[in-house]
Amino acid sequence: MKSQSSTTIELKAGERIDDLQRNGYGIIQNPEKFCFGMDAVLLSGFCRIGPEEQVLDIGTGTGIIPILLQAKGKGEHFTGIEIQEESADMARRSVAMNGLADRIEIICDDINHAKELFSQDSFHAVVSNPPYMIASHGLKCEKTPMTIARHEVMCTLDDVIREGSRVLKDKGRFFMVHRPFRMVEVFETFRKYHLEPKRMQLVYPYVDKEPNMVMIEALKGGRSRLSVEKPLIVYQSKGKYTQEITDLYGY
Amino acid sequence: MKSQSSTTIELKAGERIDDLQRNGYGIIQNPEKFCFGMDAVLLSGFCRIGPEEQVLDIGTGTGIIPILLQAKGKGEHFTGIEIQEESADMARRSVAMNGLADRIEIICDDINHAKELFSQDSFHAVVSNPPYMIASHGLKCEKTPMTIARHEVMCTLDDVIREGSRVLKDKGRFFMVHRPFRMVEVFETFRKYHLEPKRMQLVYPYVDKEPNMVMIEALKGGRSRLSVEKPLIVYQSKGKYTQEITDLYGY
Repeated sequence: MKSQSSTTIELKAGERIDDLQRNGYGIIQNPEKFCFGMDAVLLSGFCRIGPEEQVLDIGTGTGIIPILLQAKGKGEHFTGIEIQEESADMARRSVAMNGLADRIEIICDDINHAKELFSQDSFHAVVSNPPYMIASHGLKCEKTPMTIARHEVMCTLDDVIREGSRVLKDKGRFFMVHRPFRMVEVFETFRKYHLEPKRMQLVYPYVDKEPNMVMIEALKGGRSRLSVEKPLIVYQSKGKYTQEITDLYGY
Repeated sequence: MKSQSSTTIELKAGERIDDLQRNGYGIIQNPEKFCFGMDAVLLSGFCRIGPEEQVLDIGTGTGIIPILLQAKGKGEHFTGIEIQEESADMARRSVAMNGLADRIEIICDDINHAKELFSQDSFHAVVSNPPYMIASHGLKCEKTPMTIARHEVMCTLDDVIREGSRVLKDKGRFFMVHRPFRMVEVFETFRKYHLEPKRMQLVYPYVDKEPNMVMIEALKGGRSRLSVEKPLIVYQSKGKYTQEITDLYGY
């Protein structure tokens, strides 16, 4: 698919532009390295962010989440931080291609430097689709882009939540998607950094199957009370999305 | 409904016998005071207990959970502890009526006396359908049987989990049903007492509605990794149970 944008953008070897089916936006990806998944799309749907809010995306990859949030009118200005230069470079070119340079800033740095990069109460909302796997779990190859995106080799869950909490305003919200098998640890780590889980939704591939994602909203300085939402079911039959997923993708 | 048992059992004013549709068992309840809910039935289905295991039910009420577990062959011997004398008395008469006096023992006492009542590693499994509501939440009347069953006026979540952990063997399992809004706190309290949440299932009244129960299995001395099961959906349409619920009720 070709982007509808008329900006001239240089593609590097192996890269392609995928149409996001929103505002004519496209995204540059390299399918041999890493492409965004449904996780990013569902998380952008789950986020509740006001149109005037400042948003930080931790581990933004190719910038999919800020671009989708901007397309949906969720947030005024977005900062995406990404440790991998190659992904950050694709993100920057996608932002430029979509004419969003004044709305989305991409920083190539380590989230563990957040203290130097951002002041303490910079953001109304933090979002993250972090690496799901513990560094040692089933890790065969070294630091390829895919490994860094999926495994906690460059940053841990604790790093992501600790630094996210640091830069959030009081009553700011942290939106995260993760795997259900680490849900207890995600809750505990949020609480460790004064973020109270207030809302969650499980994503079930089919109505009779185990969930493969959990989305959580945590409130900085919130009181303990969790709302669990209705199940989000992806497929109504093999290869056929439910209406809710079709709506989230926008086509 | 009448019990199929032929044992002569004295019913007190306001009491009735409900048929449990399992082994001809019945249960004595007083509908003006408190009747068991779907929670107890679903929890008895969720429990994984071997046929030779010793089981403690904390806050057994009228003894519904031990009776259902026994009917399903889950456990060898059951101890039900209940602080309310009136409920414990109904439980004892139900146990006798069903001919289960050698399998189920009902103790009328406070779970906070567990240290004096039981030795430290007495049980393979602990089950509990505890009071869901924090003592102060929406509490209008004083200590009626229903209030005590539903609100934490006589014991807290911390009491139930702390004492349950105390009497569990190493690698023993704690099975609990609770409301989703307290899930984060349930997880945290389990971990506080060295019980690792390993398995959970959310119960959704309808496929497109928020869940109203969560069932959790925690392992004493377990490592961190949670399995979330497929959604348990109660109604397929108004008044019509799904097949899974029909199977759990046994009729």
